[in-house]
Amino acid sequence: TLAAPAIAQSMPKINWRMTSSFPKSLDTIYGGAEVLSQRLSEATDGNFSIQVFAAGEIVGGLQAADAVSDGVVEACHTVGYYYFGKDPTWALPAAVPFSLSARGTNAWHYHGGGIDLYNEFLADKNIYALPGGNTGTQMGGWFRKEINTVEDLKGLKFRVGGFAGKVMEKLGVVPQQIAGGDIYPSLEKGTIDGAEWVGPYDDEKLGFFKVAPYYYYPGWWEGGPTVHFMFGKKAYEELPKAYQSLLKSLCQGVDADMLQKYDYKNPTAIRSLVAQGTQLRPFTPEILDACFKAANEVYAEMSASNPAFAKIWESIKAFRSENYTWAQIAEYNYDTFMMMKQNSGEL
Amino acid sequence: TLAAPAIAQSMPKINWRMTSSFPKSLDTIYGGAEVLSQRLSEATDGNFSIQVFAAGEIVGGLQAADAVSDGVVEACHTVGYYYFGKDPTWALPAAVPFSLSARGTNAWHYHGGGIDLYNEFLADKNIYALPGGNTGTQMGGWFRKEINTVEDLKGLKFRVGGFAGKVMEKLGVVPQQIAGGDIYPSLEKGTIDGAEWVGPYDDEKLGFFKVAPYYYYPGWWEGGPTVHFMFGKKAYEELPKAYQSLLKSLCQGVDADMLQKYDYKNPTAIRSLVAQGTQLRPFTPEILDACFKAANEVYAEMSASNPAFAKIWESIKAFRSENYTWAQIAEYNYDTFMMMKQNSGEL
Repeated sequence: TLAAPAIAQSMPKINWRMTSSFPKSLDTIYGGAEVLSQRLSEATDGNFSIQVFAAGEIVGGLQAADAVSDGVVEACHTVGYYYFGKDPTWALPAAVPFSLSARGTNAWHYHGGGIDLYNEFLADKNIYALPGGNTGTQMGGWFRKEINTVEDLKGLKFRVGGFAGKVMEKLGVVPQQIAGGDIYPSLEKGTIDGAEWVGPYDDEKLGFFKVAPYYYYPGWWEGGPTVHFMFGKKAYEELPKAYQSLLKSLCQGVDADMLQKYDYKNPTAIRSLVAQGTQLRPFTPEILDACFKAANEVYAEMSASNPAFAKIWESIKAFRSENYTWAQIAEYNYDTFMMMKQNSGEL
Repeated sequence: TLAAPAIAQSMPKINWRMTSSFPKSLDTIYGGAEVLSQRLSEATDGNFSIQVFAAGEIVGGLQAADAVSDGVVEACHTVGYYYFGKDPTWALPAAVPFSLSARGTNAWHYHGGGIDLYNEFLADKNIYALPGGNTGTQMGGWFRKEINTVEDLKGLKFRVGGFAGKVMEKLGVVPQQIAGGDIYPSLEKGTIDGAEWVGPYDDEKLGFFKVAPYYYYPGWWEGGPTVHFMFGKKAYEELPKAYQSLLKSLCQGVDADMLQKYDYKNPTAIRSLVAQGTQLRPFTPEILDACFKAANEVYAEMSASNPAFAKIWESIKAFRSENYTWAQIAEYNYDTFMMMKQNSGEL
């Protein structure tokens, strides 16, 4: 027939490898890549397959984007801020201090030009990136002692990465770069005073509550962090149009799915942590204010010397202001009422 | 070749019709069906096509689910609460008073068993439903006069549908069923005292601010309403597995996309409405409390006489309590701090 060859051509066999920045034990965040792979395979009757590798199987978790840039693999699942050291612009659409929450950030990615802005920056690195997961606002981490004042931050050895570390340095914190598996022993021995990871569901698995009882919130450096799928730009552009569209559409669903999974799992985990002795503590307004001021200093410094950074940051900042004006009306008042009812035992 | 027929078979030509409950003028909510149709067509090289019809083109907006049940069309894009009159259970996974917000409801749909529970109820109606959009917390509607006390609700002729109307009746409101296009003249003439629609972006288009200056929040009857895609169960089950999986995956992305679009467009619209003289007013805690109490009475009455209703409501209620415990920790404190900074002009 005439039809068959055309159809066959539209579903060619493609086998890609995707390196994840995460270990398999983190089923939510590692799981996002598996969900994409499964949905893609199902939708194409197995013709477009992406095999997922955990951090360390092909390259280390922090080399995932390099492996895509260099064409070692066609895809990775990673967080842009891991590459902060190359250029802080990498971090902006992932998570930076006092940026958008998950809903705000997704509005910006999908309808505020965020996806295009990031890809404009990534084009000469052979990367095409799409949002591929969100954790929601993270927790502020685990501390061996209470942090009551800005003064208490001075000299504090705190496990935290890139951008947030740079902001905290201004307040005297000594940021520590420590891989996930090494955090627990460091906290236990007192080599470090505190450590941030993700939120209740992931943190409980790593057992930090046993060695650092104070669990602070909110994680002001990750208000709604985006995990990205990054594809080799050339590999993506060589796909048939149908596969390009499919991949893009599927990523948006997988992106949403990760947040939904965290939102379902975190409530049980926070209860469990508290039942096991975890002490919840809010950062004081004084501490948050000092961190906010320090973050703005860092933004000003980086914007002054880095036009690519300035361009994306201005776009985020403009929408951040719009977003936090509207979000405080219907949504915030509804949530506030419902939380009051929860706390008075009426839900 | 041997391969071609197998591949051809996996992408058969399918042409479906989808009737929307919305007019084309509402690009966000009507647009969700168009986005699904386009993504499906692109991913299958045009082999699986869904043609979308606006409300009234095939059947009226409130007959969309019936048209699917009866096999008149293979699909619709609608809101479950439109069918509240048949059985209030229809409304539960869509929106009911004081239920989950958008993030909570999605956690419940996708990871808390919500999708399966709804489809268990819909199975004998020849419907398979998937979430297909969310508006976020809606506004509480437009009023010609201020509503300061519970007393002010007595005798109030308010345009509002199904479930919420039933709750408001307990407080003396006289609910009015009026189609979208007829609301404006009714408000203008004073035939009704108020009307609820969606939120700033959609409401601005209909011009209510010109005839009813007080815009109340929050819309406690729609904390995070879900629009559903409903497919003929038989039609869905006859699809090849690849198409079933594709459709399901695409719907999750389209579901997320609608909320993202509203979240991007509402901030501009609320500013514009206020600039044109709209007066924002919060419902007082006294009014919200009275409505909450009335809603709980309705839930108790319905649960007592309707086991299908009770089963789904118990599932939502259990997660609602979990959700509003966790959401008030990291997420709420982060948002609160950011809103304070917005209001002090620091964002």
